[in-house]
Amino acid sequence: MKNKDLYQLFIEELKDMHNSENQILEALPKMIKHASSSELKEALSKHLKETENQVKRLDKIFSILGLASSDETCEAMEGILKEGEKIVSDKHHSPVLDATIICACQKVEHYEIASYGTLKSLAKTLDLDSKVSSLIQENLDEEGAADKKLTKIAEGSLFTTGVNKAAAKA
Amino acid sequence: MKNKDLYQLFIEELKDMHNSENQILEALPKMIKHASSSELKEALSKHLKETENQVKRLDKIFSILGLASSDETCEAMEGILKEGEKIVSDKHHSPVLDATIICACQKVEHYEIASYGTLKSLAKTLDLDSKVSSLIQENLDEEGAADKKLTKIAEGSLFTTGVNKAAAKA
Repeated sequence: MKNKDLYQLFIEELKDMHNSENQILEALPKMIKHASSSELKEALSKHLKETENQVKRLDKIFSILGLASSDETCEAMEGILKEGEKIVSDKHHSPVLDATIICACQKVEHYEIASYGTLKSLAKTLDLDSKVSSLIQENLDEEGAADKKLTKIAEGSLFTTGVNKAAAKA
Repeated sequence: MKNKDLYQLFIEELKDMHNSENQILEALPKMIKHASSSELKEALSKHLKETENQVKRLDKIFSILGLASSDETCEAMEGILKEGEKIVSDKHHSPVLDATIICACQKVEHYEIASYGTLKSLAKTLDLDSKVSSLIQENLDEEGAADKKLTKIAEGSLFTTGVNKAAAKA
């Protein structure tokens, strides 16, 4: 490990994501409760389980680095979720609410994609244990897949109408 | 336009992005001031000009829709920028600070990529004027390109060392 300050940035980001994932663990059940589309409920429920595993992967990274898991309040995720709750709470169960939930969740996913992207890049530069990079990559891949799945649920496919079209027809 | 509530979601998101872009216009000069790498300063300065244009494009969309431009405080962007300022402010001018700035800016870019992605999808579903979709696409493309450029500055190329490696050696 070559630079203490760069390593410190990595650790700060790791704590930020540990806190973010824990905030998401609290927020996702509310989103699932508000969703109407069974496809959306299923995707969010799957992602809730993935998020639980993601926290465990972050714990493993802390452990590999010889550190105790710790959080640093992620004000960015607080803001994203606060806004998500605001736009969701003023709508009743409907395809439009489903579209709103997808909109809010994709902002969450993209925050995570950016953060795990940075962590991946820093882990490589700092030449950290390859297991650290693999764990970050697994989380990054899941966030990317979750984002793509939400786009598919919103826009539909050959076989499904899509939440947005259902909302337009509602 | 088929559904009033879905259109309302589009307008809410539009106001959110108008406010986000204005917040970014205030934050970017501080990031530029703190940056050391000339490549990073240049990329952020270019993106500042792009952001000014992006606000104008959003103004055009409001105008096409027959609405006055308006903002709705984007708490998510407030959180992202607040956190960015926090992690940037406690570091002195250095390649590590450059890496921190890139980390903060990529979170901003990804928030915008998610939001413009939603706006694009909603504009299509709502069958809005094709000019609206084009303007959103232009903003989305610029955010995507800015994010990729930042990754390149962080990770370097055949011809440049990259901010992260410079930080590791500092």
